[in-house]
Amino acid sequence: MSRKLFVFFCVMLSGVLVNAQSIKYVDASSLTIIGKPIPTEKAFSRIDTAQYKFSNKTIDTYANYSTGLAILFETDSHVIRAKWTTGSGNSGTNMAAIGQKGLDLYIMKDGRWVFAGVGSPNMKKAPFNNHEGTIVTDMADGVKKCLLYLPLFDRVDALEIGVDESAMIKPMDNPFRYNIIVHGSSITHGASASRPGMTYPARFGRDNGYYTCNMGFSGMCKLQKEYAYYLADIKDVDAFIFDTFSNPQADVIYENFDQFVDIVRAAHPDVPMIFLQTERRETRNFNMKRESSEAAKQEAAKTVVTRRMKTDKHIYFITSEDFLGTEHIATADGTHPTDLGFTYMLESITPKIKKILKKYKTLN
Amino acid sequence: MSRKLFVFFCVMLSGVLVNAQSIKYVDASSLTIIGKPIPTEKAFSRIDTAQYKFSNKTIDTYANYSTGLAILFETDSHVIRAKWTTGSGNSGTNMAAIGQKGLDLYIMKDGRWVFAGVGSPNMKKAPFNNHEGTIVTDMADGVKKCLLYLPLFDRVDALEIGVDESAMIKPMDNPFRYNIIVHGSSITHGASASRPGMTYPARFGRDNGYYTCNMGFSGMCKLQKEYAYYLADIKDVDAFIFDTFSNPQADVIYENFDQFVDIVRAAHPDVPMIFLQTERRETRNFNMKRESSEAAKQEAAKTVVTRRMKTDKHIYFITSEDFLGTEHIATADGTHPTDLGFTYMLESITPKIKKILKKYKTLN
Repeated sequence: MSRKLFVFFCVMLSGVLVNAQSIKYVDASSLTIIGKPIPTEKAFSRIDTAQYKFSNKTIDTYANYSTGLAILFETDSHVIRAKWTTGSGNSGTNMAAIGQKGLDLYIMKDGRWVFAGVGSPNMKKAPFNNHEGTIVTDMADGVKKCLLYLPLFDRVDALEIGVDESAMIKPMDNPFRYNIIVHGSSITHGASASRPGMTYPARFGRDNGYYTCNMGFSGMCKLQKEYAYYLADIKDVDAFIFDTFSNPQADVIYENFDQFVDIVRAAHPDVPMIFLQTERRETRNFNMKRESSEAAKQEAAKTVVTRRMKTDKHIYFITSEDFLGTEHIATADGTHPTDLGFTYMLESITPKIKKILKKYKTLN
Repeated sequence: MSRKLFVFFCVMLSGVLVNAQSIKYVDASSLTIIGKPIPTEKAFSRIDTAQYKFSNKTIDTYANYSTGLAILFETDSHVIRAKWTTGSGNSGTNMAAIGQKGLDLYIMKDGRWVFAGVGSPNMKKAPFNNHEGTIVTDMADGVKKCLLYLPLFDRVDALEIGVDESAMIKPMDNPFRYNIIVHGSSITHGASASRPGMTYPARFGRDNGYYTCNMGFSGMCKLQKEYAYYLADIKDVDAFIFDTFSNPQADVIYENFDQFVDIVRAAHPDVPMIFLQTERRETRNFNMKRESSEAAKQEAAKTVVTRRMKTDKHIYFITSEDFLGTEHIATADGTHPTDLGFTYMLESITPKIKKILKKYKTLN
């Protein structure tokens, strides 16, 4: 008991010392930034919109977002804080502000990335674009390897990481391997993920040690040529995962699919292209029109991909019957998976994708 | 193929007819309202704050919320719409507007309540208190039994349900049995539930056919006497579920517990009181102070309940080691379970609670 008491007082005392210590801030752009398929001029944009012009203003806005980006750093600080600046836009009704414009920190522990804390955005004072807060505090001594995900549905104009005045903080070497590009709709974008690190591309990468890039464009992913040209420009890509059959109606799928694949294939002749059928939306449960149009989309997806598989041995198709479980409870609004939905989806696709990747790389 | 085409055209045609039909609105207060432990003057308040005065303004505000309330009705309409008025408060950073001030509809199908659609609140035009929208449309002919959950984190001043002009709409008999009161903190309140029907008390009731009342008070649940007096006033209660060890620190738990139980017990001598230990928060993962204070809370919970169990055979304790799974991914912010967290929690507590209830009632 006396030993327990001693430890208790040491913890209390170190807490007081930590709290008393002042904080220094470093520009996160001086640390390691991961998640970009192609380097960008602006540190926290996933696509360089000065270089890649999109025909649609919304796509352009989304391309500038920090979706899927994360900062890797090492520090021996006892506290991690952040100051960051985003756009001032309000969130959708199906998303929380932490996912939209917050930060999400993981620290390496026993070989796994373990959740450490969130940076909660300012929702009290308009224009809601300046944020500051403590992500985690009162940590033990020692060097921590940190992975900090950036906002999913906003741009980040500036980001500073705060640590103890006397602490070390430095860029961390990227521990993720391969380069896996995930392109899709709001499901990929992570509309209703609770936190930036809870999208299915982020979880798939973090849990399996893969380098994943989030090319999800909410409501805007219809197998357009402009995306295909961007994807063709990416160097050293190891695999594409496509969730491209959620936004387009069946006729658009039939019209755009082959042309989209042609453009990507011209640049990446042997790279596996893994197409997900797109989830069975819960908005179909009682809406007969939706039942009919969604079934047609899923049928179109199956038709175009399996037809192409006959002549292209590096194209794969993953059916979606189990993407949202069986209880009709895995979406925030009938369409967008919650963290529960992404859990079901990952349980379905992870072994299938890993099996495909094994054909191309020797996995541990 | 010709039969498919015929069905297709019938569906299209009925869609056109439905859309052409005008909508009539009925006041939801004329339908069946469930989820109140004690009747209230205001239709959509869970507690009558004219009758029950709370010492704290925030508790008073929460008592007026529609948390846990739902409307039961039958209709043969092809469309269900709603117009509703709430407060104008903004949501927390860890919650989506659909959960905070939206509506969540389930329809009975093959003996189960199946998700049908959400009423999305207005987030575009200040003061964000008037809402209107379609919850589900293009439904098949026939009578539907409907269960519509009300906002979790706002009051509802008015609610009208819209159906086809020619449709029948009437109150539905309450199909839920027993009266189970769930009292707790933000976890019970459902802070980060994606939709109003996704809190653990709502899911526990809906999936098992139990009448549950949500007495969750975010951040305000510390075994206060005023709650105990309210709970003592409830007639015909069959069981209490308590998640009361999340907000108070260990010393408050030791100080308040017996007095709280005494007051409830004086009114309900034989009613099972089932205490949940409170989840292991993910904010403990790296924060040593939090690790220590949270462990002390959980230890205090165990101590006070097990001590009381020695003299009260109707008190039960459910330990919480598996409430949030094992991967540290089940909260929105380190504290509040997402739909994934509630899924893990229900997988743990449901069989344990049902086993306890079986001692008191003959269950199917």
